[in-house]
Amino acid sequence: MRPSGRQTDELRPISIETNVTKHAEGSCLIKIGDTHVLCTASLEPRVPPFIKGSGLGWVTAEYGMLPRSTGSRMRRESAMGKQGGRTVEIQRLIGRSLRAGVDRVALGERQITIDCDVLQADGGTRCASITGGWVALKLAVQKLMKAGDVVSDPLIDPVAAVSCGIYAGQPVLDLDYPEDSEAGVDGNFVMTGNRLIEVQMSAEGSTFTREQMSQLMDLAEKGNTELMKAQLEAVK
Amino acid sequence: MRPSGRQTDELRPISIETNVTKHAEGSCLIKIGDTHVLCTASLEPRVPPFIKGSGLGWVTAEYGMLPRSTGSRMRRESAMGKQGGRTVEIQRLIGRSLRAGVDRVALGERQITIDCDVLQADGGTRCASITGGWVALKLAVQKLMKAGDVVSDPLIDPVAAVSCGIYAGQPVLDLDYPEDSEAGVDGNFVMTGNRLIEVQMSAEGSTFTREQMSQLMDLAEKGNTELMKAQLEAVK
Amino acid sequence: MRPSGRQTDELRPISIETNVTKHAEGSCLIKIGDTHVLCTASLEPRVPPFIKGSGLGWVTAEYGMLPRSTGSRMRRESAMGKQGGRTVEIQRLIGRSLRAGVDRVALGERQITIDCDVLQADGGTRCASITGGWVALKLAVQKLMKAGDVVSDPLIDPVAAVSCGIYAGQPVLDLDYPEDSEAGVDGNFVMTGNRLIEVQMSAEGSTFTREQMSQLMDLAEKGNTELMKAQLEAVK
Amino acid sequence: MRPSGRQTDELRPISIETNVTKHAEGSCLIKIGDTHVLCTASLEPRVPPFIKGSGLGWVTAEYGMLPRSTGSRMRRESAMGKQGGRTVEIQRLIGRSLRAGVDRVALGERQITIDCDVLQADGGTRCASITGGWVALKLAVQKLMKAGDVVSDPLIDPVAAVSCGIYAGQPVLDLDYPEDSEAGVDGNFVMTGNRLIEVQMSAEGSTFTREQMSQLMDLAEKGNTELMKAQLEAVK
Amino acid sequence: MRPSGRQTDELRPISIETNVTKHAEGSCLIKIGDTHVLCTASLEPRVPPFIKGSGLGWVTAEYGMLPRSTGSRMRRESAMGKQGGRTVEIQRLIGRSLRAGVDRVALGERQITIDCDVLQADGGTRCASITGGWVALKLAVQKLMKAGDVVSDPLIDPVAAVSCGIYAGQPVLDLDYPEDSEAGVDGNFVMTGNRLIEVQMSAEGSTFTREQMSQLMDLAEKGNTELMKAQLEAVK
Amino acid sequence: MRPSGRQTDELRPISIETNVTKHAEGSCLIKIGDTHVLCTASLEPRVPPFIKGSGLGWVTAEYGMLPRSTGSRMRRESAMGKQGGRTVEIQRLIGRSLRAGVDRVALGERQITIDCDVLQADGGTRCASITGGWVALKLAVQKLMKAGDVVSDPLIDPVAAVSCGIYAGQPVLDLDYPEDSEAGVDGNFVMTGNRLIEVQMSAEGSTFTREQMSQLMDLAEKGNTELMKAQLEAVK
Repeated sequence: MRPSGRQTDELRPISIETNVTKHAEGSCLIKIGDTHVLCTASLEPRVPPFIKGSGLGWVTAEYGMLPRSTGSRMRRESAMGKQGGRTVEIQRLIGRSLRAGVDRVALGERQITIDCDVLQADGGTRCASITGGWVALKLAVQKLMKAGDVVSDPLIDPVAAVSCGIYAGQPVLDLDYPEDSEAGVDGNFVMTGNRLIEVQMSAEGSTFTREQMSQLMDLAEKGNTELMKAQLEAVK
Repeated sequence: MRPSGRQTDELRPISIETNVTKHAEGSCLIKIGDTHVLCTASLEPRVPPFIKGSGLGWVTAEYGMLPRSTGSRMRRESAMGKQGGRTVEIQRLIGRSLRAGVDRVALGERQITIDCDVLQADGGTRCASITGGWVALKLAVQKLMKAGDVVSDPLIDPVAAVSCGIYAGQPVLDLDYPEDSEAGVDGNFVMTGNRLIEVQMSAEGSTFTREQMSQLMDLAEKGNTELMKAQLEAVK
Repeated sequence: MRPSGRQTDELRPISIETNVTKHAEGSCLIKIGDTHVLCTASLEPRVPPFIKGSGLGWVTAEYGMLPRSTGSRMRRESAMGKQGGRTVEIQRLIGRSLRAGVDRVALGERQITIDCDVLQADGGTRCASITGGWVALKLAVQKLMKAGDVVSDPLIDPVAAVSCGIYAGQPVLDLDYPEDSEAGVDGNFVMTGNRLIEVQMSAEGSTFTREQMSQLMDLAEKGNTELMKAQLEAVK
Repeated sequence: MRPSGRQTDELRPISIETNVTKHAEGSCLIKIGDTHVLCTASLEPRVPPFIKGSGLGWVTAEYGMLPRSTGSRMRRESAMGKQGGRTVEIQRLIGRSLRAGVDRVALGERQITIDCDVLQADGGTRCASITGGWVALKLAVQKLMKAGDVVSDPLIDPVAAVSCGIYAGQPVLDLDYPEDSEAGVDGNFVMTGNRLIEVQMSAEGSTFTREQMSQLMDLAEKGNTELMKAQLEAVK
Repeated sequence: MRPSGRQTDELRPISIETNVTKHAEGSCLIKIGDTHVLCTASLEPRVPPFIKGSGLGWVTAEYGMLPRSTGSRMRRESAMGKQGGRTVEIQRLIGRSLRAGVDRVALGERQITIDCDVLQADGGTRCASITGGWVALKLAVQKLMKAGDVVSDPLIDPVAAVSCGIYAGQPVLDLDYPEDSEAGVDGNFVMTGNRLIEVQMSAEGSTFTREQMSQLMDLAEKGNTELMKAQLEAVK
Repeated sequence: MRPSGRQTDELRPISIETNVTKHAEGSCLIKIGDTHVLCTASLEPRVPPFIKGSGLGWVTAEYGMLPRSTGSRMRRESAMGKQGGRTVEIQRLIGRSLRAGVDRVALGERQITIDCDVLQADGGTRCASITGGWVALKLAVQKLMKAGDVVSDPLIDPVAAVSCGIYAGQPVLDLDYPEDSEAGVDGNFVMTGNRLIEVQMSAEGSTFTREQMSQLMDLAEKGNTELMKAQLEAVK
């Protein structure tokens, strides 16, 4: 029995509100249950030095949590003078994941930065960031296409992500915080269409079998399919 | 004529939504026109070393802007490795302002940290942070009183803040960003009831007279009175 | 009764010794009572990027305290790895204040950096820095004019600053450290001629009325008039 | 055809030289082909605050690359003033992986820090660090057991790691640098005995199917089995 | 012929003004020609952890240059976020040098921190800092002895330092900046009485013989003897 | 009697293994007794700004210790966010020393960076770094000459360094860690051929005479002569 009463293969309620800030080229507030992430896409003039002149585009991401997005207040990273290891790890994952779903030739030599700021956390913030980040990215790209700056759509299938884990001995989909803090084994699965972009299975102080991993991947496929449906609905 | 079409003594529309995050002891999303700030109050066990054992409470504040809260994306302060001078200045102002409205004996030896995070900026973010910060603080204190942890209310009058400046030669109330970026003279006025807590008049590359200052203070008194009404409404 | 025995509207003794270092284009050692600040003006080739090619000049300031300028030794900011919030706040104030008294067209596209280093502190270091900083700036500009690099004087009236506060219930001029550490309300008033540049009234844990503010401004006008006389004497 | 001429399921030559430094409680120099990592285990008196008094042990890891361990010289992280995101990610992975193979009750309340410093890099440094790190850890634990400080062995099965990827359309085991820099899909597989600890499959700018993932896992199981044999040989 | 017209074995004019700041337990402004250093001694309650409870005292030093102490303005180290390598090297030298002249048992378990801040630089700032630093230290110790806190004098002979170098092929004493920037070989000699504490001979892009070194040491002995006379005069 | 049983004028066993890493243009692993330093020379395209266009070459050095190169584990400098004062001091010494032995005209406008990383420390790491650093530098230069990029050899005599000190009242050559931690007086002597490059005599909490200094220099000359023989052997 899950703390939330959900079925083992049941996502939390999804809500994606688009165009929530007036400045960003694309934005959404994604809510996966009580996990709320504000995602913005910023079109930027400069590309990183290593692709200057290549004609290729770039997508990158940054991630942050508001100090009181969590149960007890965390120290503000800007006040500590650096981003923690977890933050760095997550924003690298978001960037890699979104880039894998982009046709960088079609995007052309421009950079889009996705900022994912967690307003309220209840587990699964990195997955919500990827899923919401893609929506913000898509909205920014739609603007570029409408303006004729980009001709062929560089984003075909949505990129979505979901966590799965073994909670109380049972594989479950979309862990919330009470489950996440108990689960010895959990993972994040990033997909586009029915293909995989990234799989991160991790066992903090525990281990798992290939069979368990396979069960979790079944759940992840089901979850990501539903998330992609919500993404497409949001950007219509 | 103001860009927004407002009267010279007219505030932007005010909206204060309370209890917007499930974790914080007090919270609100304050909107002053297009300036949106998420304010949370976190009750914390530790007090600063210099008041340990004094029986006195402490209120402090931190301030941040999301990277794309502004017209063009700003660099994330955590990624730069430090808070900028403007950020430090603002959060010190918020903390001083709120403390001036607190009976620290009545609060008792506990610390409340107010986080003000700007989701969308259109001028006046520090004033909105003080005004919204007081609401979050009040809600947290109400919880303490309900629980019997605090007996006599340490917060009597609301603390509110508003900016005024000389725009196109005319004193105006509550500058928005287009006005703020033009005004040679502007100031922030923090009040509690009809008394002053802080006055910061500044002339970037310009100067002003005592008479002009007096006119701005008249506007500020009018504006803060309206803001306090909205605050009291919100925390009822 | 003030600890120093001064009248409520009496400044501390002022001394401004000019040309105290052989390298700087302009310099002075200003002593306001026991507050001693070494101010230097450095002419620098580069202007900030945002005014390159504009033909406008720039004046900026940095501030520091020697570790044992104070009653008990402070940690050295370079050893701590950053400038504290108070330092940043003060040097921004000095820069803004001096710029307000400069005709940047007349100065031409060059930068002058004012360094204010407190050798001994006894309250009012930021005001002494502004007052002494203007003297150093004026001396550097005189050199530029003598050399024919600047034709029309970009500095008309002196820029001076003084603090006032309510000490033992009474408005007093030019707080020294024993007064400053007791005063619940105090402020800094920056003026040029009889016009205001910056007013910063602050009530740490207290509040004040408009009438009190007006009394402090009367004192500030008197004090700044005397300071400007001393500045003009020094740069003659 | 692989650049090295290896079979698709062939590891590079493995060499594990133990007790290579006189100070560390355990140490080895692991060579996986041209990837050379010096691993040391340091027994430390203090445990992290969050387990103080729990009776549980802790294993943590740090990772670094010598500036010229790579084809072109990298900047030294200590000179840059921070560890890069990749470094942080890797050392968190090493720590998590090794902890998953430790019986922390049997270890008792002590900390062992594993330092993995890459002397020469040719792909797969994080996997070599985990594999060599376990050997250093085991040697340190053997010393504790010999001294009677630990009674029941907290390390049962070795923890080993290997990378696999799709190179030139073909799943291959143990990527070297020329393969790694070409492969669009690759992953790291950490195992203990025949169970999984961590799976990190990543597609930089590409995607993959579940079937491909399964093929890579077959290779990883084969590779880790051989690595574990070498580890057990080394610590005998 | 030296640029200053001095003899090869001639010091610049020495001036040591004592008790120049009202807060420090000991202080002096030392002028060696145009090199001016403000030295303060601060008695501090805490000793470093490694001597707590040992009964031994500690003397340490910090060094800084005001940004415009030099011909062209240097960046402020606190603004750069760290002390440069040269600064760190110099302050370690000052600390070691002064400690060598202290009877740490007689001093008792207390720390004295010497701050050496260069107001104006013209070569030889580290030597002037050591020489002036000892005077500040001595004055602070005299206060401790007068108060009966220290009974037996922990400072017997003065500690002085002077630079020597080979300028235009000739060994010269007490290099000023024009000489220092030309000299291929130079060194700093720290002495107490007629014994050596530290010798740092360095050849930037050049080399020297033992005989040249001997000649420089003869000059250094002569110079330090004169400096010690001035020190003793100053602390009388 | 020395702890190691060596004669007072006896070096520890020297071993210099060359070409130990496949990437660096020159490299060696130098072992002076139990002090082991990995030295690499990296040819780099960019020269420092201050010599751009001068036609002169540049040699610089960086130094680091692996965390467990020492008896008890040191904190990793990259994790602390800065290089300690000792590290900075040492790498400046290595750079200065090696540059003094280079004909920078003959080298031509290119930079060679010497990295000295201590794998195991037992006293004398800075001297071993200079001695080994020269070998790595020489090997890189030989490659440049073989390729015809450099025509006239910019390195004539080897640059070597050795420490000497007064241990148990007796001048001894090449201090190991047990001696170094006891010696009140010790020094580092850098030479090229029979000429001196740098002499750093230091007395931590002690003093010494010119005669003692002379005795140590005799030892240093003997030691460096032997080291240079080993260097020439290694690069043949």
